[in-house]
Amino acid sequence: MKIVVDAFGGDNAPVEIVEGAILALKKHKDLEVILCGDEKRIKECLNGREERIEISHAPDIITNNDVPTEAIRHKKDSSMVRAFDILKEREDVIGMVSAGSTGAILTGAIMKIGRIKGISRPALAPILPTKKKSDVIIIDSGANVDCKSVNLVHFALMGSAYYSIIYDTPNPRVALLSNGAEEGKGNELTKEVYPMLKAAPINFIGNREGCDYMSGDVDVMVSDGFAANALLKGTEGAVKAVLSILKGSIKSHFLSKIGAVFMKRTFKDIKNRVDIQGKHGGSPFLGCKKLVVKNHGCCKRENIVSSIDQTILLNEKNLIKRIESAITAFEEVKGE
Amino acid sequence: MKIVVDAFGGDNAPVEIVEGAILALKKHKDLEVILCGDEKRIKECLNGREERIEISHAPDIITNNDVPTEAIRHKKDSSMVRAFDILKEREDVIGMVSAGSTGAILTGAIMKIGRIKGISRPALAPILPTKKKSDVIIIDSGANVDCKSVNLVHFALMGSAYYSIIYDTPNPRVALLSNGAEEGKGNELTKEVYPMLKAAPINFIGNREGCDYMSGDVDVMVSDGFAANALLKGTEGAVKAVLSILKGSIKSHFLSKIGAVFMKRTFKDIKNRVDIQGKHGGSPFLGCKKLVVKNHGCCKRENIVSSIDQTILLNEKNLIKRIESAITAFEEVKGE
Repeated sequence: MKIVVDAFGGDNAPVEIVEGAILALKKHKDLEVILCGDEKRIKECLNGREERIEISHAPDIITNNDVPTEAIRHKKDSSMVRAFDILKEREDVIGMVSAGSTGAILTGAIMKIGRIKGISRPALAPILPTKKKSDVIIIDSGANVDCKSVNLVHFALMGSAYYSIIYDTPNPRVALLSNGAEEGKGNELTKEVYPMLKAAPINFIGNREGCDYMSGDVDVMVSDGFAANALLKGTEGAVKAVLSILKGSIKSHFLSKIGAVFMKRTFKDIKNRVDIQGKHGGSPFLGCKKLVVKNHGCCKRENIVSSIDQTILLNEKNLIKRIESAITAFEEVKGE
Repeated sequence: MKIVVDAFGGDNAPVEIVEGAILALKKHKDLEVILCGDEKRIKECLNGREERIEISHAPDIITNNDVPTEAIRHKKDSSMVRAFDILKEREDVIGMVSAGSTGAILTGAIMKIGRIKGISRPALAPILPTKKKSDVIIIDSGANVDCKSVNLVHFALMGSAYYSIIYDTPNPRVALLSNGAEEGKGNELTKEVYPMLKAAPINFIGNREGCDYMSGDVDVMVSDGFAANALLKGTEGAVKAVLSILKGSIKSHFLSKIGAVFMKRTFKDIKNRVDIQGKHGGSPFLGCKKLVVKNHGCCKRENIVSSIDQTILLNEKNLIKRIESAITAFEEVKGE
């Protein structure tokens, strides 16, 4: 089982990426890793630990400043394009992991790997915590800002297949992001999508508002990328603001300072609960013909391990085939 | 100076509404209030305190279950429709305050009071706290889920005029909600709006993401109602989730329990900081020919006082005329 890793994507490349690959190799005895990037620097990082590692020398790097389509077309010797080429050409490679520019990974996934038949827009589905023990995914999280109704149905089918694998549950609860829970609520797009989701072969539970997605009563939240971005970034901003107000207030009250010392474990709990990325690694681009898992630019070695874990799991459980079957089933329902 | 109050709107009507009106009358010596609703019950609440109060007997009530257009058309003896009729017909009445159904208030404002010339969509602009000392408004917050570019420009002009009055500042910083700060980011709608906002007679500072609106660097955040709803509800959900995790964790650790006792003042600080509604009362429907201020359904007497304060201020500072001038100025820029 082989996975190709873009060793020069992200802020902490190549050290954290290479160390992550080495940790994953220790964990999975039948795993082999192909590291793409500057051979000399990768070898320095490996420092002799080369067992089950292949290096593909690619000295160039794609940055966040590169225009994605141009970079994928012309930076043929970049670590990311090389990883895509290897994923595309070698049948024994089951997936790819990169922490590089999101736009470039999306573009590369579409141009180099291609979409599953019937899917026009691959999507990202990051995992977030809820108030209960379960997690929730939001699909699409920002790759597609202008969507048609059929895109949202595909997001629902793909998200449901993905969630059911990573949480080993047969019928994830799929909801549509709207401005009210009632069936009649929504904008033109969601009103058109609603009956399509009702007819689709998924466990559709109706509309939900932005305040409900962390309730633990939704597993897969479906949205266009623009509204989802507002929701996700709003959440991020609010959490930061609350913690910042908390911090500011603690500083200004002597008794609170004492309290904060006692509450250390509680603050640690919050941090752990919200640190979903560490637990699950990156997000796959759902809808591509092969597994492409994207990590945050700031990811560390443990995130790379989680992303490799996830790639292995999604391969074992046949994510791609499940998505293909779901699309076929939906097309049949539509055709009736 | 007269203000008409819907005494039977909201969960705490009529007691909290009537008490709020009485408190406002104590504060503003030249104020007179017209209370609309069941005369007998209003008199019971007043219990003799009838100075500068006029009662307009309207025994019917519009509920959240009523279809707004039908309710406004047919429930002619409801407290809300009566308030609209009085606001429309009597020149000496400067504004109206209601905590009834948002949909019905919007419908009534459009059907009974009418829009300022040039404005096709009145909008709501709730006030939220930021990490710094300033507040931010989001316009439109949900009344208009499908918007055209010109609607968003009007939201920007109206929001800017409103913010400059309530915070007494000449050039509020106006931003456009997008999925990235760069000029090229956005969906079809925001990309079309961007150059129009640049040309408009406001202090436009560009695109901002959902995580930036509580930063204190934005005064007026412009968005369609659907994305704004996702942002606002996401914020609400996230704040609740963080506080719930905090609470759960405090319960489970003995030392945190001790800490929480010491941190009481800090928690109170957070509550005060976030309790914007109490400070500012409701939100006016911007774009109507007269002042219509909507309160939350769960509002208490102090929120009614704040809404009456706000109505008086917006009248003194000529909000309606300022919006009319801004629309005219924009039409002139467009025409050039």
